[in-house]
Amino acid sequence: MPYIDVDPQLPGIRALMMFKPASGAALSALAQQLLRGDSPLTPAERELIAVRVSRGNACEFCEWSHAAAARSLLDGDESGVVDEVAENGVSAGLDDRMRALLQLADLVRERGDRVSQADIDRAKSAGASEEAIHDAVLVAASFCMFNRYVDGLGAFTPPRGAYDEMGEMLATEGYVR
Amino acid sequence: MPYIDVDPQLPGIRALMMFKPASGAALSALAQQLLRGDSPLTPAERELIAVRVSRGNACEFCEWSHAAAARSLLDGDESGVVDEVAENGVSAGLDDRMRALLQLADLVRERGDRVSQADIDRAKSAGASEEAIHDAVLVAASFCMFNRYVDGLGAFTPPRGAYDEMGEMLATEGYVR
Repeated sequence: MPYIDVDPQLPGIRALMMFKPASGAALSALAQQLLRGDSPLTPAERELIAVRVSRGNACEFCEWSHAAAARSLLDGDESGVVDEVAENGVSAGLDDRMRALLQLADLVRERGDRVSQADIDRAKSAGASEEAIHDAVLVAASFCMFNRYVDGLGAFTPPRGAYDEMGEMLATEGYVR
Repeated sequence: MPYIDVDPQLPGIRALMMFKPASGAALSALAQQLLRGDSPLTPAERELIAVRVSRGNACEFCEWSHAAAARSLLDGDESGVVDEVAENGVSAGLDDRMRALLQLADLVRERGDRVSQADIDRAKSAGASEEAIHDAVLVAASFCMFNRYVDGLGAFTPPRGAYDEMGEMLATEGYVR
């Protein structure tokens, strides 16, 4: 049960964002920019970073909702890339550039100063542009916020099977209503 | 030296935000809402949470810039509250409510699910409203993002003595130019 008196009909972060709409609107706008705005990373690639960071931070609501969004963006994800990335941070279905960016995301999640010049150089050698590196670091950092907001206020987490519709909506409509 | 090619004249997060202005604008708007928007917490109280979390995450740019903002908001902070909060998470100059909210912030920084109902109850008993708890958790969570963005991209950190002017600007003008 959430630690503050939010609308019990709304799942996860949505209830928290409605508790204080002025903050919720700023968070939605940020999510829309980071996950759907112009970027060398596709929306699916950015959702995969969100999934991996949320798993690392043990935030089930964020992991399951963004995994559903990623599956929808990947047309069903027949080959299970989303589950592999959540579990291992890597998948045979990914190119070298995405592998390197997911490694960066793991370091950022741990702590910002875990990232070294060598990690950045590795991502560049694997084909990541500076903008791709910037965006991957910022998406990973932002989920260190979203995850803590959700769990720090005990947001309601629907059971794992209940995210398909939400994922499709996030894939098609994005983060700003 | 920053890991990506940013304007070397700009310190810390400002250079990163100018690297990709669309993302920078969303981050500035969020900072303005969380640190200066309507809240039962004063701007100085929110800056203290930012300082404490940034110290815990070892992000010197964020700690030193927000410490300077807090000192400016506290009219110079003759009694050293800012330094005590950075170091110990508590100060004789704080009321029970702020002490409890800073304890919450420490837990949120560690990981969202470290917060329990008992921690929330303690904050309420100390006089914190649900909105104050919401805002403290979200400010703490947001600095887990800002800190990682700054250090994950190796942002330029001016020496410790160089933040007074920046702090005064943040105190008087806020986070949106």
